[in-house]
Amino acid sequence: MVAGLIAIGAGLAVGIAAVGAGIGQGIAAGKAFESIARQPEVTGTVRTLLFIALAFMETLTIYGLVVALMLVTGKM
Amino acid sequence: MVAGLIAIGAGLAVGIAAVGAGIGQGIAAGKAFESIARQPEVTGTVRTLLFIALAFMETLTIYGLVVALMLVTGKM
Amino acid sequence: MVAGLIAIGAGLAVGIAAVGAGIGQGIAAGKAFESIARQPEVTGTVRTLLFIALAFMETLTIYGLVVALMLVTGKM
Amino acid sequence: MVAGLIAIGAGLAVGIAAVGAGIGQGIAAGKAFESIARQPEVTGTVRTLLFIALAFMETLTIYGLVVALMLVTGKM
Amino acid sequence: MVAGLIAIGAGLAVGIAAVGAGIGQGIAAGKAFESIARQPEVTGTVRTLLFIALAFMETLTIYGLVVALMLVTGKM
Amino acid sequence: MVAGLIAIGAGLAVGIAAVGAGIGQGIAAGKAFESIARQPEVTGTVRTLLFIALAFMETLTIYGLVVALMLVTGKM
Amino acid sequence: MVAGLIAIGAGLAVGIAAVGAGIGQGIAAGKAFESIARQPEVTGTVRTLLFIALAFMETLTIYGLVVALMLVTGKM
Amino acid sequence: MVAGLIAIGAGLAVGIAAVGAGIGQGIAAGKAFESIARQPEVTGTVRTLLFIALAFMETLTIYGLVVALMLVTGKM
Amino acid sequence: MVAGLIAIGAGLAVGIAAVGAGIGQGIAAGKAFESIARQPEVTGTVRTLLFIALAFMETLTIYGLVVALMLVTGKM
Amino acid sequence: MVAGLIAIGAGLAVGIAAVGAGIGQGIAAGKAFESIARQPEVTGTVRTLLFIALAFMETLTIYGLVVALMLVTGKM
Amino acid sequence: MVAGLIAIGAGLAVGIAAVGAGIGQGIAAGKAFESIARQPEVTGTVRTLLFIALAFMETLTIYGLVVALMLVTGKM
Amino acid sequence: MVAGLIAIGAGLAVGIAAVGAGIGQGIAAGKAFESIARQPEVTGTVRTLLFIALAFMETLTIYGLVVALMLVTGKM
Amino acid sequence: MVAGLIAIGAGLAVGIAAVGAGIGQGIAAGKAFESIARQPEVTGTVRTLLFIALAFMETLTIYGLVVALMLVTGKM
Amino acid sequence: MVAGLIAIGAGLAVGIAAVGAGIGQGIAAGKAFESIARQPEVTGTVRTLLFIALAFMETLTIYGLVVALMLVTGKM
Repeated sequence: MVAGLIAIGAGLAVGIAAVGAGIGQGIAAGKAFESIARQPEVTGTVRTLLFIALAFMETLTIYGLVVALMLVTGKM
Repeated sequence: MVAGLIAIGAGLAVGIAAVGAGIGQGIAAGKAFESIARQPEVTGTVRTLLFIALAFMETLTIYGLVVALMLVTGKM
Repeated sequence: MVAGLIAIGAGLAVGIAAVGAGIGQGIAAGKAFESIARQPEVTGTVRTLLFIALAFMETLTIYGLVVALMLVTGKM
Repeated sequence: MVAGLIAIGAGLAVGIAAVGAGIGQGIAAGKAFESIARQPEVTGTVRTLLFIALAFMETLTIYGLVVALMLVTGKM
Repeated sequence: MVAGLIAIGAGLAVGIAAVGAGIGQGIAAGKAFESIARQPEVTGTVRTLLFIALAFMETLTIYGLVVALMLVTGKM
Repeated sequence: MVAGLIAIGAGLAVGIAAVGAGIGQGIAAGKAFESIARQPEVTGTVRTLLFIALAFMETLTIYGLVVALMLVTGKM
Repeated sequence: MVAGLIAIGAGLAVGIAAVGAGIGQGIAAGKAFESIARQPEVTGTVRTLLFIALAFMETLTIYGLVVALMLVTGKM
Repeated sequence: MVAGLIAIGAGLAVGIAAVGAGIGQGIAAGKAFESIARQPEVTGTVRTLLFIALAFMETLTIYGLVVALMLVTGKM
Repeated sequence: MVAGLIAIGAGLAVGIAAVGAGIGQGIAAGKAFESIARQPEVTGTVRTLLFIALAFMETLTIYGLVVALMLVTGKM
Repeated sequence: MVAGLIAIGAGLAVGIAAVGAGIGQGIAAGKAFESIARQPEVTGTVRTLLFIALAFMETLTIYGLVVALMLVTGKM
Repeated sequence: MVAGLIAIGAGLAVGIAAVGAGIGQGIAAGKAFESIARQPEVTGTVRTLLFIALAFMETLTIYGLVVALMLVTGKM
Repeated sequence: MVAGLIAIGAGLAVGIAAVGAGIGQGIAAGKAFESIARQPEVTGTVRTLLFIALAFMETLTIYGLVVALMLVTGKM
Repeated sequence: MVAGLIAIGAGLAVGIAAVGAGIGQGIAAGKAFESIARQPEVTGTVRTLLFIALAFMETLTIYGLVVALMLVTGKM
Repeated sequence: MVAGLIAIGAGLAVGIAAVGAGIGQGIAAGKAFESIARQPEVTGTVRTLLFIALAFMETLTIYGLVVALMLVTGKM
């Protein structure tokens, strides 16, 4: 019973954390494409900032992944 | 009982994680098409960035897949 | 009881994963049609990118399908 | 009890999977009609792409149907 | 108890599957009317495509209906 | 207990199925009125298509009704 | 216990079914008013179609009401 | 226990049914005010139609009220 | 136990019923203010209709209140 | 146990009822400010109507409060 | 057990009640700022009305707080 | 068991209460920035009102915090 | 069992509280960027107000964090 | 059982907290790109503010991560 509940906890940690990051990355990337199309000369600036923003959001899910892995591999 | 709850955890991990990535990829790709149609000369830049953004979002679900596979194949 | 909970896990894995991909593919395809109608000369570029984006999103559900099949066919 | 939970799993698999595909197909088809009305000369291109996109989305629900049928017809 | 849970599974299968198809058909039909009003000469093309799209979406619910009928009429 | 759960399943089948059809019919009808107001000469075409679309959506709820009636009148 | 669960099923059947119809009727009626205000000469056509659409949507809830009444008055 | 579950069923029947009607009536009435402000000469037509639409939506909740009263006053 | 479940049923009846009416009244009143600001000479007509619409929506919650009071004061 | 469930019922009654009223009052007040800014000479009319609308919506939550107080102070 | 359920009831009462008021106050305040920026001479009128509207919405949560405090401090 | 349910109640009280206030403060602050950018001479008025509105919304969560602290520190 | 429920309470307290603040901060920051881009001379004012607004919203989650820490570190 | 519930608590803490931050960061970054494209000379100001806002939002999830780690590594 314990292992099963831990598995559900791990699944929720990585699953729910990925929802927000996924939607956020989609919005950010989409707006970046729009900005580049409207002002092609800001491509460099926007590209750099886009990578930073994607990394920030990717990190959010990695937090969830870390907790999930700790739960699965038995750090308890 | 344990195996059943682990299965639910695995299903939630890969399922919920795919929701955010799916919606995010749809938004990003849609905006990329719009940008290309408005400014055909930025096709190259947008295409490269689109692939990177899609890869970032695909990774989010792969995190969930990794946790799910670890749960299913019995790493506990 | 175990088999029943595994079935629910499999159903959630493939079901929820398909929601995000379905909405995302709809948004992406819809925006592609709009772009082609606004700039018919980008049809080739948009068509190629659309196929790639649809494939990326289809993959998200296939991840869920893989987990579901592993659960159903008894890899546990 | 087992058979009942399997039935719920099968129902969720095909039911939830159909939600995303239904909404996605509606958005894609609606945008296709708009594009044809705005640029009647792209009818051929859009029609072909629409069929491909509808097929992609239909496939998502068929994944859920496959899992549901496997659960119902007793592949466990 | 088993028959009751099977009934809930059948209800969810056909019920949830109908939600997405209903909303999708409404969006598609609404956009079709708009397109016909804006460009009356595309009525034929749009009408044909609308029927195909409605059929695709109707099919999604029929998948759910098939699973529900199999559950109700006792194919287990 | 069994009869109670069957009743809940029947209620969900017809209830949830009606949600999507109701919203969809509202959107379709609303857009049809708009189209007629903008181009009064397409009234005939839109009216015919509206009836077909309403019928398609009504059918979705009837699927749910059929399952609910089968559950209530004891086809199990 | 059985009677209680049947009551919940009946409540869900008529309650949820009314949500979609209520929102749909509101959207349809609102758009009809707008259309009449923009093109007063289509009042007759829109009024007739509005009544038909309202009737279609009312029917959806009546399906739920029928199932609820069958459950409450003991047809099981 | 039975009386308690019946009470919950009655509460859901009248409660949920009122949500859709409330939102729908708000949308319809709001659009009616807008239409009257834009074209004051259609006040009569819109007022009549508004009353009919409000009555249709009020009926939806009354269906739920009927079921709730039958449950509360013990028709089971 | 019974009294507790009845209390939850009463709470849901009056609570959920108030949600839809609250949002609906807000939309209707807000649109009425807009209409008066755009066409001050329709103030009288809109004010009368607003009161009628508010009353219709208030009634929806009163239905829920009636059911809740019947449950609380022990009509069962 | 009974007292605890009654407390939950009371909490739901006043809590959920306040959600709709809160959002509705916010929409109504916001639109009133907009209308006054666009047509300062309708301030008097809008202010009076705003107070009436706020009172209507406040009443919705008071219904919930009444039920909650009856439950808490032990009218059962 | 009783004290724990009462605590959940109190938490729901004050928590859910604050959601609607928070969103409503945000909408109202935001629209007030917009109105003042568009028509600086209505600042006095809008400020007074904003305070009244905020007070109305604050009251909604205070209703929930009162019920929660009565539950926590043991008026049962 | 009691302490655990009280903890859940406290968590819900402060958690849910913060959701509405957070979204509301975001909307209000965002609109304030827009207003200042459009009419820089109203900065003082808007700033004062923004602080008052933020304080009102902060208070909503503090109500939830008070209830949570009372539950946690054992006022029961 | 107690410790587990307390853990869930702590998780809900800090988790849900962060949702509202996160979305709110995103809206506020986004609008601040827009305002600065439209009127670069208000940068100073908007920056100061943005920091204050972000601090207000951060505080909301810190309330949740405080409750969570009190629950985790055993102040009960 | 205790360890399992603690795992679910930890998963919820980090998972839900990441949802809001993810969506918020996406909105903020997207608006920043738009602002830079519209006014390239504010790039420096917006970039600095974007980093600060992203850090604020990242902190929200880190709060959840801290609580989750405390729960997982056994500070109870």
